[in-house]
Amino acid sequence: MAADHLRETAISSRLIFDEGFLRLRKDLVRLPDGSQASREVVEHPGAAAVAALTDDGRVVMVRQYRYAPDAVFLEIPAGKLEKGEAALHCAQRELVEETGWRATQWAWLAPVHPAIGFSNERIDVFIARGLEEVGACPDAEEFVEVEIVAVADLIEAIRLGQITDPKTVLGVFAVERMQRGEWAWPQFEQINSA
Amino acid sequence: MAADHLRETAISSRLIFDEGFLRLRKDLVRLPDGSQASREVVEHPGAAAVAALTDDGRVVMVRQYRYAPDAVFLEIPAGKLEKGEAALHCAQRELVEETGWRATQWAWLAPVHPAIGFSNERIDVFIARGLEEVGACPDAEEFVEVEIVAVADLIEAIRLGQITDPKTVLGVFAVERMQRGEWAWPQFEQINSA
Repeated sequence: MAADHLRETAISSRLIFDEGFLRLRKDLVRLPDGSQASREVVEHPGAAAVAALTDDGRVVMVRQYRYAPDAVFLEIPAGKLEKGEAALHCAQRELVEETGWRATQWAWLAPVHPAIGFSNERIDVFIARGLEEVGACPDAEEFVEVEIVAVADLIEAIRLGQITDPKTVLGVFAVERMQRGEWAWPQFEQINSA
Repeated sequence: MAADHLRETAISSRLIFDEGFLRLRKDLVRLPDGSQASREVVEHPGAAAVAALTDDGRVVMVRQYRYAPDAVFLEIPAGKLEKGEAALHCAQRELVEETGWRATQWAWLAPVHPAIGFSNERIDVFIARGLEEVGACPDAEEFVEVEIVAVADLIEAIRLGQITDPKTVLGVFAVERMQRGEWAWPQFEQINSA
C-alpha cells in the first residue's frame, strides 16, 4: 500500500544470528519525523499452508506439539519453504508428508503475515480438494496426528479459543464462507502429480 | 491440550540475544522417539489488541508501517505488554494512545498465537464498545493513522488479501459473527477509567 509518509528507512543493520531457518538482525532506522529507533527483525524463509477439503466438505487437520509456545495445536498442514521452492509446491509437499493425503485441485487463497511486529514471515494459504490417500511420509522430526474435522466444529473451536494460529483461523473462516456461498470459490487448478 | 506423546523436552538452552523486547534462544530438545533436534525460540513479552466498535458497529482501525515485513498494514490497535502489565490494561492503553478513543465496555475474545513455529508470542484480543473521544497520545515512535471502517469492508479486505495480520483477521471475523447473531456477544465489563 502506498503510504510513504509512514515509512521507516534503514540506516544500518547488524546481523545477530544466522542458524537453522532463522536470521536475526537489529537495524537502526530513521522514522518519518527524522528521529532514529532500533528494530529487531526475524528473517523467515516463508511458508505455505493448505485447507484441504474432503468430498463431504471436512478439513484435513494435523495435531502437533509446538515447542516455542509449549502447547499442542490443531492446525491445517503447513511448512517452511525450502530454498527456491514455490509456495504451491511447498503446500503440496507438506500435505502429503504430514497427512498422507494428496489433492488434485488447488487454489491460492491469501497470504498471512503472522508476526508483523518483528518478522517478515509470510504464509501463503491454499485451498485444495480432490483428495486421494497416498500414505504419510513425515520428516524424521515430525510427530503429527491427522484428524478430519467438520468446518462447523473448527469454527466452534475458534470461538472457544482452542484454534489460535493465524493460517488455520483464516483458512477455516474462508472455507466456511465459501461453503455458505458468501464468498465465491476460487478457480481451482488441476494438478495430477504432487 | 493433553497430548504428552507428542511433546518435546528441553535438554539444554543457549541464550543468543536479549535486547529490546525480544530474547532469542536456541535449545537442544528431545523428540518423542528419543532423538534430538534444535529449536530456535523467540521469546516475546506478549501483547494485547482490541476490536473497538462505534455505536453504529464500525471498527476503529489503525494504518501503520511495519518495518519487519516492510509494508503498511490496516490493523486493530495493539501493543506489547509492559513489564507486569495485564492484557486488558495494555489493550486499553494502546487504544487511547494509538487512536484517541477510550472505551467503557470491555470483553475478552480469544488468544492468538501468531508464530507458533518459532515464538511464544500470545496476543489477547478484546472487544470494546461505548467509545468516547479523548484525543490520541501516541508514543514518540508511533506514526499511525486512524480509520473507522465498516465490518463488511473489513471482511472484503480479508477476502482480497489486504488484511493479513492474525489479530485483525480474528477480531473482524468474530465481530461480524456477533453482529449477525451467529455468536453470542461476550459479557462486557463496565470500565470507567482507562
